[in-house]
Amino acid sequence: MSRRTVGVDVGGTKVLAVAVDPAAPTEVLASARVSTPTGGSAIVQAIAEVVHQVDSDPTHEVGVGVAGLVDRNGVVWTSPNLPGVDRFDLRNELVGRLGRHVVIENDATAAAMAEARFGAGVGRTDVIFVALGTGIGGALVVDGQVRRGVNGFAGEFGHMIVERGGVRCVCGRRGCWERYASGAALERMAHDREQAGDWQGRPLATAISGEEIIEAARVGHPTAILVLDEFSGWIGLGVANLVAALDPQCVILGGGVLDAGDVLLEPIRSAVRASLFGVERRPDVEVVAATLGSMAGAVGAALLAAESITDPPP
Amino acid sequence: MSRRTVGVDVGGTKVLAVAVDPAAPTEVLASARVSTPTGGSAIVQAIAEVVHQVDSDPTHEVGVGVAGLVDRNGVVWTSPNLPGVDRFDLRNELVGRLGRHVVIENDATAAAMAEARFGAGVGRTDVIFVALGTGIGGALVVDGQVRRGVNGFAGEFGHMIVERGGVRCVCGRRGCWERYASGAALERMAHDREQAGDWQGRPLATAISGEEIIEAARVGHPTAILVLDEFSGWIGLGVANLVAALDPQCVILGGGVLDAGDVLLEPIRSAVRASLFGVERRPDVEVVAATLGSMAGAVGAALLAAESITDPPP
Repeated sequence: MSRRTVGVDVGGTKVLAVAVDPAAPTEVLASARVSTPTGGSAIVQAIAEVVHQVDSDPTHEVGVGVAGLVDRNGVVWTSPNLPGVDRFDLRNELVGRLGRHVVIENDATAAAMAEARFGAGVGRTDVIFVALGTGIGGALVVDGQVRRGVNGFAGEFGHMIVERGGVRCVCGRRGCWERYASGAALERMAHDREQAGDWQGRPLATAISGEEIIEAARVGHPTAILVLDEFSGWIGLGVANLVAALDPQCVILGGGVLDAGDVLLEPIRSAVRASLFGVERRPDVEVVAATLGSMAGAVGAALLAAESITDPPP
Repeated sequence: MSRRTVGVDVGGTKVLAVAVDPAAPTEVLASARVSTPTGGSAIVQAIAEVVHQVDSDPTHEVGVGVAGLVDRNGVVWTSPNLPGVDRFDLRNELVGRLGRHVVIENDATAAAMAEARFGAGVGRTDVIFVALGTGIGGALVVDGQVRRGVNGFAGEFGHMIVERGGVRCVCGRRGCWERYASGAALERMAHDREQAGDWQGRPLATAISGEEIIEAARVGHPTAILVLDEFSGWIGLGVANLVAALDPQCVILGGGVLDAGDVLLEPIRSAVRASLFGVERRPDVEVVAATLGSMAGAVGAALLAAESITDPPP
């Protein structure tokens, strides 16, 4: 008999909790969200609040996905998007606060778990998951298992350097992939074009969202098309690098910009083919959009928590 | 009781065979080598020749490591350094020729196996192996197992693109890591400096080997030091990218240039620290030189063959 389980996604803007049955986790039984506060103890408080809203039974386990380097003991080592949680023992604090079984995981790892088992990766044993948000999160499934690395820090694809000496990153280095291939990067690329023309009466080179750039490209705006080509080229380059290294069956791309569908996915697939070693002679790799949407991180966290009960971590 | 096993390393310049006892494989019982010929059937002939020289017992299995994309059935899909073997069913041809159990593997995967089990990675469960030769080969050990990817093509780190639109690669693309971080790249970087000065009476910017550049840097030649800094910076960038993605305990660097020791390894370690996400807060990753030398590929191939007898592949 399966039990109700809670999953929480702690992102840079919101803390989202869901209650699910781990046997059918894509059907969300309850959800709640609050804005992400600043600092470790305020975040613990926010998590406790949304958990109580979706499920108050203290015997039900809680999984939490956090953007950042999370070790195997549930300590957050660093998180560029959550100030004030460096070396923060989130698991211990939450156990104290909730009195429940708690599992902490990287947010992209949690989302990858959900997508690989119940979303775009069903039936695949080797999956790379890339979440293109404000930054880029990632995770990998190899031979049927999520692989966390020796510290639990694997999958930080967004901070692979693709341009030595390039654009300054929030992490302090230069040229990280997430400065070229995240939703934020798309907006910067439009902004950087001085001769951009306008879109629906507003200058393309100022405050225009990624969604608007994609919509403009869809209906044939020449500058928007150029910007989208540049953007998808960078995404494809990074994806091809990951495929060369890991040779997966399937690369799942998540994040709001992917809602655009084929207008973005097709140029990304072309760019992967242009950048991938041996592409002329190797079998095609699937490059697909995530299907579980914005709930994937919270759902995956719930799955990981449920799994940790049946399969205790080593 | 362990049995004598043969390992063969098929590289761009030589075909090397060793006979080993898989229980103590670093002690090579016999070895033989010939120059690498051109074309599939000539290579089969060369392999048969060196195998017979080291061990003529047809009941002993043979492992072969090949530079290139090798699938799980022993078919070589493509190999930039072995012309004429595209889509060549090497395993089948060798079984027909030798009448022995034959296992075919990527050469770097074979070398990684040997280094992880009996060389620089002893006791480590998560290892990245990078062989800096004419090109760059690679392989990965995750949670204690060599991971080959879904087609068997994982570990092609040398063709991860580190400079979009950069130096043209043998694979047809531009900016591959092996154009910046292989032994051949070191020589090109010296050559590209017009104002290079000379080394022992010869212009540093012409025909000087990687070893000579490193030796010049060791004794303080200013241009050689600059060249070595640039070179180790590129190696460190690629290594840091792999660590961000995979979070291993240990990165093992192989290839002739590593014989230089700390004069190269120390700047590489600094460059990894400069390029690695979260380095200020994460535990140090070991970056070490391979210890098994030029026999690692052949020894690893023998190990894989021995293992395939006790543990048949899926």
